[in-house]
Amino acid sequence: MASCPVTSREPASATCLPADQGGSIAAALESVRDFIEPRLAATLAFDDETPPRLAEAIRYAVLAPGKRLRPALALWAAQACGAPHRDPADHWEAATPAAIAVECIHAYSLVHDDLPAMDDDDLRRGRPTCHRAFDEATAILCGDALQPLAFEILAAGMPAAVAARSCLTLARAAGAAALVGGQVDDLAAERGWITTTPATAAEQVAWMDRINRRKTGALFLASLHLGGLAVEADAAQLEALARFGRAFGVAFQIADDLLDAEGTEAAMGKRVGKDAQRGKLTYPTVAGMAAARDRAHNLAAEAAAAVAPLGEPAARLAALAHWIVARDH
Amino acid sequence: MASCPVTSREPASATCLPADQGGSIAAALESVRDFIEPRLAATLAFDDETPPRLAEAIRYAVLAPGKRLRPALALWAAQACGAPHRDPADHWEAATPAAIAVECIHAYSLVHDDLPAMDDDDLRRGRPTCHRAFDEATAILCGDALQPLAFEILAAGMPAAVAARSCLTLARAAGAAALVGGQVDDLAAERGWITTTPATAAEQVAWMDRINRRKTGALFLASLHLGGLAVEADAAQLEALARFGRAFGVAFQIADDLLDAEGTEAAMGKRVGKDAQRGKLTYPTVAGMAAARDRAHNLAAEAAAAVAPLGEPAARLAALAHWIVARDH
Repeated sequence: MASCPVTSREPASATCLPADQGGSIAAALESVRDFIEPRLAATLAFDDETPPRLAEAIRYAVLAPGKRLRPALALWAAQACGAPHRDPADHWEAATPAAIAVECIHAYSLVHDDLPAMDDDDLRRGRPTCHRAFDEATAILCGDALQPLAFEILAAGMPAAVAARSCLTLARAAGAAALVGGQVDDLAAERGWITTTPATAAEQVAWMDRINRRKTGALFLASLHLGGLAVEADAAQLEALARFGRAFGVAFQIADDLLDAEGTEAAMGKRVGKDAQRGKLTYPTVAGMAAARDRAHNLAAEAAAAVAPLGEPAARLAALAHWIVARDH
Repeated sequence: MASCPVTSREPASATCLPADQGGSIAAALESVRDFIEPRLAATLAFDDETPPRLAEAIRYAVLAPGKRLRPALALWAAQACGAPHRDPADHWEAATPAAIAVECIHAYSLVHDDLPAMDDDDLRRGRPTCHRAFDEATAILCGDALQPLAFEILAAGMPAAVAARSCLTLARAAGAAALVGGQVDDLAAERGWITTTPATAAEQVAWMDRINRRKTGALFLASLHLGGLAVEADAAQLEALARFGRAFGVAFQIADDLLDAEGTEAAMGKRVGKDAQRGKLTYPTVAGMAAARDRAHNLAAEAAAAVAPLGEPAARLAALAHWIVARDH
């Protein structure tokens, strides 16, 4: 039996995930990739109206190797909320437009975040960033095309009532008050767009929480909700997914900050230590490594508890929350 | 009586618009602005979740003085297709989300087109472009936030069936095969993204038509269709609007090229002559001024004929097509 990925790094206050479950989450994510990646590729088979260079850049950005966490959240949320007498495969099919749409939004946000005018990154998922592999104009336009593609997929692939509600949910998550607003605030301190910055550690954590809730958390939550909406989840199920998503989002970001502080470029496939180099606030620098790790594990436990009422079909989501804070991958 | 704006410039093969109708179109566009601009401003009253700098950039981009052609197309299409016994004001209210959504997409496309990596323009609508008034990152993010806002407005403001179809229509018009693809092809020759360029005048006109159909025409057509969908237009009405939109789009672009070739920066509120400076193809440089102007007038007549079956409520659209090719404004 392999060592527990949580306790092998640091004793944690949260429940440790047995190693075999850790293994099964990795396998479950692999199943998600096997399911969604051919469907993503088929969605990105553009016709002659799309210039070849643009089509190539979009495929480069979306089909780059990735964990497909957001599609997994959408598919597993559908599985957790769908009618129990139906084949889980039906729930996955119903949630496929949702899974593809959220991945398109995620891919666009990475392409634009990496731009020279933004984070100016050269490496992403182990390969040159889109503007390095192509050029800056193509990267901007690649992101610009991925946004409406996400809404097209939802509007074309779902019953009207579900499509309308899904478009609204995704639009809010991708908008000025969420994803884009979070990115603006994330840049605000280093660009001098704000005159006062949070001073105490508590204020700094609150500031980071506010950014992360919008910059990354909102799209996690939308992924879950879109998956739920695809199988006509009820209000209580959507609320359970929302509670899961809020805790999961912060847990994910803390884990990401820890990896950024500890990881190597080779292992991560992107530049590491960049937050510290820029003097950006991160959870480990503000709270310390051990406290950050403790909070991540507590949030994972909170996320898992939130979906417990959804029963056994939600076990994947609970396991994912524990896995995400234990990952060194 | 003022001189006819068409014949005062050049004898045209198309029907001349009587001067009083020309006057009434300017007044009608003024009415559209009076109607839509307060509603646009109200839509852009963001709450605390949107960073103030981002909110300011979005308002700067959208609320800049403009003709509001796309909102006019949406509102007038609704008026042309709506049930005749209803108050036209009801049709305008129904089409308001459509009118606001298409203006948001238009504003985003201008902000991104003006970026240094794209057309690198300093002046737009008589004021510094968004990235000059703010900065490049803010301009990118401003455009990024306007796209989902358009879909949010449609999804939140219309009955589900209309919202879903409207989101699909707008998403396709804003996507890789339309607006973004057209912009890519528009940059392709000067950036060396294509190895063969059209050689004969006929091939060059076909190439420009293909770009314009997607870069500007698709959003005009979507504006019309969204207006029609808002009042539940039938298939024949939507087809009439489509025929109008296709002719209108090319007529508009030829008129724009003529203004770019002839106009002054002070009158236009943006840099002029830039297409020629960059060696970009334009209708007047390929076909000659007189032939370009003739084609524009013929297309305006074609557009007007397309909406004739919709009867008197479509007269505004027909008049707009004639006005757009006669404008020196």
